Amino acid sequence: MLMSQLLGERYKEKPVEATMNSHIFLLRGGYIRQVAAGIYSLLPPAKRVTAKIERIIREEMDAIDGQEVLFPVVMPAEIWRESGRYDSIGSEMMRMTDRGGHDMVLGMTHEEASVHLARTEATSYTRYPFMIYQIQTKFRDEPRCRAGLIRVREFTMKDAYSFHISQEDLAQYYDRAHAAYERIFRRAGLKNVISVKSDTGMMGGSIAHEFMFTSPQGEDSLVICPTCGYRANVEVAPVSAVNEERPLGVTTEVATPDTKTIEELCELLSTTAERTVKACVFAAEGRREPIVVFIRGDYEVNEAKLRRAVGADVFPLTEGEDCDLCMGFIGPVGLKTSAKVYFDASLKGCNDMLCGANKKDTHLKGVNITAEELGELWPEEFLDLAKARQGDLCPVCGKPLDHTRGIEVGNIFQLGTKYSASMGMTYTDADGSRKTPIMGCYGIGVGRLLACIIEECCDNYGPIWPISVAPWQVHICAMGGGKDASVKDAANDVYARLSKEFEVLYDDRDLTAGVTFADADLLGVPIRVVVGKRGLANGEVELRTRDGSINRMVPLAELEKAVNEVKKELYERIEG
Amino acid sequence: MLMSQLLGERYKEKPVEATMNSHIFLLRGGYIRQVAAGIYSLLPPAKRVTAKIERIIREEMDAIDGQEVLFPVVMPAEIWRESGRYDSIGSEMMRMTDRGGHDMVLGMTHEEASVHLARTEATSYTRYPFMIYQIQTKFRDEPRCRAGLIRVREFTMKDAYSFHISQEDLAQYYDRAHAAYERIFRRAGLKNVISVKSDTGMMGGSIAHEFMFTSPQGEDSLVICPTCGYRANVEVAPVSAVNEERPLGVTTEVATPDTKTIEELCELLSTTAERTVKACVFAAEGRREPIVVFIRGDYEVNEAKLRRAVGADVFPLTEGEDCDLCMGFIGPVGLKTSAKVYFDASLKGCNDMLCGANKKDTHLKGVNITAEELGELWPEEFLDLAKARQGDLCPVCGKPLDHTRGIEVGNIFQLGTKYSASMGMTYTDADGSRKTPIMGCYGIGVGRLLACIIEECCDNYGPIWPISVAPWQVHICAMGGGKDASVKDAANDVYARLSKEFEVLYDDRDLTAGVTFADADLLGVPIRVVVGKRGLANGEVELRTRDGSINRMVPLAELEKAVNEVKKELYERIEG
Repeated sequence: MLMSQLLGERYKEKPVEATMNSHIFLLRGGYIRQVAAGIYSLLPPAKRVTAKIERIIREEMDAIDGQEVLFPVVMPAEIWRESGRYDSIGSEMMRMTDRGGHDMVLGMTHEEASVHLARTEATSYTRYPFMIYQIQTKFRDEPRCRAGLIRVREFTMKDAYSFHISQEDLAQYYDRAHAAYERIFRRAGLKNVISVKSDTGMMGGSIAHEFMFTSPQGEDSLVICPTCGYRANVEVAPVSAVNEERPLGVTTEVATPDTKTIEELCELLSTTAERTVKACVFAAEGRREPIVVFIRGDYEVNEAKLRRAVGADVFPLTEGEDCDLCMGFIGPVGLKTSAKVYFDASLKGCNDMLCGANKKDTHLKGVNITAEELGELWPEEFLDLAKARQGDLCPVCGKPLDHTRGIEVGNIFQLGTKYSASMGMTYTDADGSRKTPIMGCYGIGVGRLLACIIEECCDNYGPIWPISVAPWQVHICAMGGGKDASVKDAANDVYARLSKEFEVLYDDRDLTAGVTFADADLLGVPIRVVVGKRGLANGEVELRTRDGSINRMVPLAELEKAVNEVKKELYERIEG
Repeated sequence: MLMSQLLGERYKEKPVEATMNSHIFLLRGGYIRQVAAGIYSLLPPAKRVTAKIERIIREEMDAIDGQEVLFPVVMPAEIWRESGRYDSIGSEMMRMTDRGGHDMVLGMTHEEASVHLARTEATSYTRYPFMIYQIQTKFRDEPRCRAGLIRVREFTMKDAYSFHISQEDLAQYYDRAHAAYERIFRRAGLKNVISVKSDTGMMGGSIAHEFMFTSPQGEDSLVICPTCGYRANVEVAPVSAVNEERPLGVTTEVATPDTKTIEELCELLSTTAERTVKACVFAAEGRREPIVVFIRGDYEVNEAKLRRAVGADVFPLTEGEDCDLCMGFIGPVGLKTSAKVYFDASLKGCNDMLCGANKKDTHLKGVNITAEELGELWPEEFLDLAKARQGDLCPVCGKPLDHTRGIEVGNIFQLGTKYSASMGMTYTDADGSRKTPIMGCYGIGVGRLLACIIEECCDNYGPIWPISVAPWQVHICAMGGGKDASVKDAANDVYARLSKEFEVLYDDRDLTAGVTFADADLLGVPIRVVVGKRGLANGEVELRTRDGSINRMVPLAELEKAVNEVKKELYERIEG
């Protein structure tokens, strides 16, 4: 490819709308252009990278017996009604009506389509297990697009669906898929990816893992045990709060005017948040009555855990709109309410606590979380509804946990029979009985993966593409070729030779060294060959890597051999 | 790939909904399943074929300096308003509203997206020419889906857009694209594809060609000159009617009760259709007044030509709803009407004709198409509005034309500046002036191409895939392997050996020869290796092609060599 023909302007200025490196370099390097919020066109260099990522994904999916298929982008609402998700998914799902008046949706995921396809094809146990996958455009009407390709509305995704006749078989296959995902990220050049236990969210099912690219700019919070290696998304990480053993208190009212926060209260009464009971109020989607969660004052409610406990989406309520709760002063003693009340496990066995008195400007001190004091409100069980914090103890080994942040680049789910059962998919088992297959699903967002590769592999000047996904393998720069015909001729010759063996981008423009190298840095091609007058005088060209780790003069006659060696070394750094 | 694992049931019965071979075999062979009208999921064999077709297309697009990009499926209405097509395209365009209330559309073609992308990247004449293409999902809300993948609503399309600074450069590139298209169809194994001049339709522009797979089941009518090779879609083929020279007639009224058709009239008055003037009435989209086209009675109006003349879509009117026309008896003499009147060239110079008298149950005979008799209705020019018929004369060489039918598998357009001008795309020319680039666009529907390959390459039992696009290259059948371990072992061994060099499907199931071969025929793999007891006794297996042209016993030791020879020969048949 000649650079003079490559479509896509590159520029020096940092785009005002971008803060993350991947976003900045994708714009500055002429990789992507926005068409609407969260909707981008890919220019040739980005398309070349995604094609390579997709090839790696295909190879690894085929290696775990995946069969590539293609589901439609536009689907009839009908199959989403069968699974129940036409109603349960909110406005992220793009809906429309066709000319015949039928409700249609844009595919944001394809569990329904996969069951629709497989249920007529796999009616005997002899057909199982199998896995089908596609690489296809998806659309989610995401309200908070951000950071270029990190969070978008339209994206290319590899989604895979496996079907099994036993949970053991699914569990085994799930492990193979997990290993395939590790290989995919490694082969794509990413080192900072970890898998964490995760919430199953709108997918349903029981066990799920997210593959997280760890980054301080990630939107997800993760807990990691440095001792035993336990890892989870904070949304699912169990919390075991340790309570100080204290003697029973004596309940007494105390006036607390103008104390709406735990901090204000602690300050007024010279106590600490661990000694308080906080009441958090939520609304649940589709329900009239609010929800009250009592939790130890130093913890926060984990909405993902609460969502699972409630079985519906939940939203924090800050105003006491039309309810029988004394907002800001809610406490578990003597509370009369129509709200549904939950107690977090952090309160179990707590004595001598401070809590709201269900009366304006008043709290109770010396409250004990016992059946006696709570009366009718005493819960059948204390649920784990708290958000894990730095220093909480590992649920596996009991040692303190670390926290980090991550960007989800893939996820895998054990779905169980949620879709196969609701959509009436069955097979005939060996004994003639009709049974429902068990499913797994496995996703990777191609564009987000590309963005994360830049986040990990870049310097101040642009991406440093891993050789396995680089848009080109070799970038030829001719220095002063416009003025010196011998340089131009030599560079043309190098281009012709290297194109026979490698994917080559040749900067055939007559620009300054500054512009030439700045553009080369933005395009991030891993191997660079610089043809210049001084080197040619010795029959040599400069061979260097984009990351600067290799930089040497090579005799022209040995160029192919030398480039091949560098290419091999760069591959070894990824895979070795 | 093991057949026992391949997803997709095959069956014997002809599906009731299918009439075309491609539709029948795509369903019977487990290639596609319908999700909604005109919306299909592709099973693994079909996905493998489309991947190969896409690879051929990519190679040929790259060979004419194409740069692959990716445009979005979901686009903001905004860019379609810029070009004016948001309003001019009807309900084929799927429209929707996002959560922010913005009007969005599904991409049915990407001229707008290509200009949106290129206009910020190609602002200097030094950037031209260039061509960008994508292979992406498209959606058209087609009212008449038919024949499986022949006419669908959702489909994968390769669409390409070229940008030029002169018409000459576009014309040259257009010829290169034409040649690339010929190579694509040939390499995909299609011989019966011809290019014809075509209507530019909603794309706009001046010159366009369609690549037509000729088939009696095609929806398009084509004219072909067997003498000089002229070819066109009947929608654009010029008609030069030959009129008998006759002396002037004398206009006389004649009573013609109950004669609504030309045939009834000719019968009543013992004349022929060539001697009559027919009036055809149309409504034009967005206009109140009807349109009357006078044409010689033996011709039909070509609606595509009329559409271009009128500049709006047209629909035949059969009832005289609220208009000042005497339907069934309209004639050019003494007609008083607010309708817009056109005369087809077939009437030029006609004397002594029969036509309506603008009075119920009455015609005029002896009418001459002269300025004198027509008075105010005499047209400035006689337009070419007739549909070409079998035996009409070639507009190039004057010899009689043949007619045939075709299925459009590709199209190329010289768009001119329709999109670049309306969307404000400009570049700075060498002299510093701002200019508007000239565009071409080039489309191929991948799924329809796949279906046409089956139409051309099949027998009564299934597709006969050309080696270049076959889902697998070799199909191994083990005969009686279930009962005979030595056959099974030999077949396993053949599978292991051939998999190293070829794409192999191995029927490892233990079924009858009837089912095994019927399935193999439906999957249409071009090279078949049959492992059976009798052959093994001589150390041989059977090697045959799906089309039966090669069928011989091969010693096991020479199998790879023999398969390679057959593969080479099959490629030569396509490309030679």
